[in-house]
Amino acid sequence: MERVFTYDTTLRDGGQCEGINFSLEDKLLVARRLDAFGIDYIEGGFPASNPKDIAFFEELRREPLAHARLAAFGNTCKKGVAACEDAGLADLVASGAAAATIVGKTWDAQVTRALQTTLEENLRMIADSVAFLKAAGLEVIFDAEHFFDGWRSDAGYALACIRAAHEAGADCITLCETNGGMLPFDIEEIAGAAVAALPGQQFGIHCHNDSGCAVANSLAAVRVGIRQVQGTIGGIGERVGNTDLATVIADLELKMGMEAVGGASLRDLTAVSHFVAEVAGVSVPAHYPYVGRSAFAHKGGLHASAIARFPEAYEHISPERVGNASHMVVSELAGKASLLQKASLLGFDLTASDVDVQAILDDIKAREAKGYTYEVADGSLALLIMRHLDTYRPAFTLESWRVIVDDREDVGALAKDAASEATIKIHVGDERLVTTGEGTGPVGALDNALRMAITEFYPEVADMELVDFKVRLPDESQGTGAVTRVTITTADRQGQFGTIGVSENILEACWNALVESIEYGLIRQRQ
Amino acid sequence: MERVFTYDTTLRDGGQCEGINFSLEDKLLVARRLDAFGIDYIEGGFPASNPKDIAFFEELRREPLAHARLAAFGNTCKKGVAACEDAGLADLVASGAAAATIVGKTWDAQVTRALQTTLEENLRMIADSVAFLKAAGLEVIFDAEHFFDGWRSDAGYALACIRAAHEAGADCITLCETNGGMLPFDIEEIAGAAVAALPGQQFGIHCHNDSGCAVANSLAAVRVGIRQVQGTIGGIGERVGNTDLATVIADLELKMGMEAVGGASLRDLTAVSHFVAEVAGVSVPAHYPYVGRSAFAHKGGLHASAIARFPEAYEHISPERVGNASHMVVSELAGKASLLQKASLLGFDLTASDVDVQAILDDIKAREAKGYTYEVADGSLALLIMRHLDTYRPAFTLESWRVIVDDREDVGALAKDAASEATIKIHVGDERLVTTGEGTGPVGALDNALRMAITEFYPEVADMELVDFKVRLPDESQGTGAVTRVTITTADRQGQFGTIGVSENILEACWNALVESIEYGLIRQRQ
Repeated sequence: MERVFTYDTTLRDGGQCEGINFSLEDKLLVARRLDAFGIDYIEGGFPASNPKDIAFFEELRREPLAHARLAAFGNTCKKGVAACEDAGLADLVASGAAAATIVGKTWDAQVTRALQTTLEENLRMIADSVAFLKAAGLEVIFDAEHFFDGWRSDAGYALACIRAAHEAGADCITLCETNGGMLPFDIEEIAGAAVAALPGQQFGIHCHNDSGCAVANSLAAVRVGIRQVQGTIGGIGERVGNTDLATVIADLELKMGMEAVGGASLRDLTAVSHFVAEVAGVSVPAHYPYVGRSAFAHKGGLHASAIARFPEAYEHISPERVGNASHMVVSELAGKASLLQKASLLGFDLTASDVDVQAILDDIKAREAKGYTYEVADGSLALLIMRHLDTYRPAFTLESWRVIVDDREDVGALAKDAASEATIKIHVGDERLVTTGEGTGPVGALDNALRMAITEFYPEVADMELVDFKVRLPDESQGTGAVTRVTITTADRQGQFGTIGVSENILEACWNALVESIEYGLIRQRQ
Repeated sequence: MERVFTYDTTLRDGGQCEGINFSLEDKLLVARRLDAFGIDYIEGGFPASNPKDIAFFEELRREPLAHARLAAFGNTCKKGVAACEDAGLADLVASGAAAATIVGKTWDAQVTRALQTTLEENLRMIADSVAFLKAAGLEVIFDAEHFFDGWRSDAGYALACIRAAHEAGADCITLCETNGGMLPFDIEEIAGAAVAALPGQQFGIHCHNDSGCAVANSLAAVRVGIRQVQGTIGGIGERVGNTDLATVIADLELKMGMEAVGGASLRDLTAVSHFVAEVAGVSVPAHYPYVGRSAFAHKGGLHASAIARFPEAYEHISPERVGNASHMVVSELAGKASLLQKASLLGFDLTASDVDVQAILDDIKAREAKGYTYEVADGSLALLIMRHLDTYRPAFTLESWRVIVDDREDVGALAKDAASEATIKIHVGDERLVTTGEGTGPVGALDNALRMAITEFYPEVADMELVDFKVRLPDESQGTGAVTRVTITTADRQGQFGTIGVSENILEACWNALVESIEYGLIRQRQ
């Protein structure tokens, strides 16, 4: 099986993403996780740009990665400066990283207009820098910035740049599609010509997703003989982002018959993707290739029975191969087979119990007719199933709740923070609890009051956090008299789950979704 | 310039997306918006599957689309049933749509295992159905389901299926990559062979994004001569989603020199994408090609200066070409020209007045930074403009409002109808009015109280009806502390309009949107 090497730049180029800032601990966590996954090169950042990156390289000198080669990132030497006297290159050597990745210009206009030097001096900088790092014993990767735009502008000069790196002994020349604007056939043409021009040279590819084609562009490069792919987990990066390395790895191994992480590592793909997203403080979009929660979700009763008969017709791969799972969307169209499968994913073996599956199905359908939808409310579905199994034991029972929201034109911001007040009366075992919570809005006030009441009985409620709530009117033609559907997303240590509340009263719908989120969250934590 | 036709299936295949449920009003809004944008075909759904879709086709018969052809979706006739006796095909004809898109099987194993009929009968079903619809005067698009998997399994049979559609007179044969597992070179090979086999036949392509290559796959099909591309706005759809039509349109027009929407329509791309997402109740991911908020955002001081010197090096296109912008909040009203145009649609000639247009723009931007969005809130935008023109005369002023919502486990349905109580104190002219409205929910109670107070002064309020309200958390990472955005749709004798309220307090946001809906409704009626 042909081998394609993976080069991860999540910690460097991924960190350019608006809204993402890795701490030192984050960077170490990600590096060690990717190492265990089987990534070949992990780019750690500029080894001397700030104390965080200095500490990162120091830490990895003390306790090196097991499989991956650590790459330090920098620029070619400055114009007019000899490589051996360039402070940046000295930092790369001092970092202790096994590999140095240096970026250099290959677009004539970039050299003259942005770098403001001569085309000859740029060639000197490339050759001198590569030779210096090679002499220092490092593996050298030359990142040919804007190579594709450079080729379009002056192919001869772009080629001269990478030839300079080649002749100076670069171990790998990575063609960078810096602007992200190329399409697969552009890559095939230009990368193909570059590969053909320097026989025996190892090449890499680095793409961005500005045309929506980063994955396809990277695969096109592999098709013309490039054997190292740069990217980030989840495609995080500046603007639209980089190539998603996870998708590329899956495509290479499952579709193109090549080895990228090898062995059984591919089964770790979903977990790795969610881990990196978690550390980066983002979420893997539900509808994400291979690793998204909905990547193998199916909606519609028509499909459900067909899938059972002929799964290949609805799943391009078996989701287990990438560590993901089929996800049956329960909906008013769904049948018995999909409910059984969905229940089993939630940890219930309905076939082994003597529960009346048809009664559960009827219950779901009746509720869906009232405006419920269980597609994004696994938590509420689990509670519904437990009620049928008679295993549901409520953590508390409600006597009443009341919400008062006051708004006066003449009050200040401070008063606004307590504009809503919720009083709840609930029972936990034999105890009757009456608490009042305040909040800017009524949902926060209810949430506060409920937590206040139950924390002493269920301290683990502190680990559960309401992270999103959505409100829809399933039958909007009724105006304010319509049924309101509230879905709440709750995060806990195991991940996220959804619950739902439906009522003609928006606050009652919120309250019901809130109660189910707390109830199911407590059950999850005990499991 | 070569023309590629666009076929939008947001309302049908996009509706398969987990978590998305379009209402009738949503579907009409999207259809009319896409029509104005310049989409060639708009697929409305199954014309007889449920009352919503029946009403949708009815409404478009009454008031047809201006540019786009409306397509009704269905299956080939059932096995063993003649096309002329098939109820589904009769529904397509009865729908009044100009085009019928029928899906048929082309994968041998699918025919025998899923459909459980003979290969011959499947060919009969295809030919018979196409011929029947053609005879009924419809434009017929044949969706060749699983064509690529079918070709891999038995190329001769897959070809026989589309040949049957071809010979029966199908206007377009759309090759469907139903599983989404193919890569661009697979599409190029197989679609290329299909196109070559049926000279003179018009072809379409329908892809899914399971391998992360839907856009590239669609472009690959165009490269081999296919001239109709199916997709959804934002790529919403089952599992990983469909081809994102917005990205494909931009790639075709900006990278491949072809015409898709033509003229200046491309500048509407960002606005259309955000509009559809808003209606669908989702967000355009920030890091989305062309239309995402961060698609042209740049991080890092290093770049900022370089961008000024040589912008082409950091932006693959000028963001204005797709109606997006560098570094700024995306909005339909991003520029002065679009604000003037929008204002004129609302009946304001800002060029003729001496108002400071820049001040209006700054006001909008400041409000958008707080979570407002005026894409679906024409009423609120009109009021904002009137405040700047100094022509806004409030119909009433608020002193205070208070809402009390009570919920007891032991009350009956009658009491639930009055579970919410809203007391408002407002001034109309010299009169101070204090009214209390009841309702099942707090929004209805506020609405009742307000109407009760002002009806004697403004009896025309009876003609205005709240028909939809949506609640979003623009920055959902804040949980219950997040800002809530409420948009209200109000119907009056002239049609519908939207208003918006934003607050950390969900009820205050509702109240603000409600007040603006009444205010703007009264102004509209006086106009």
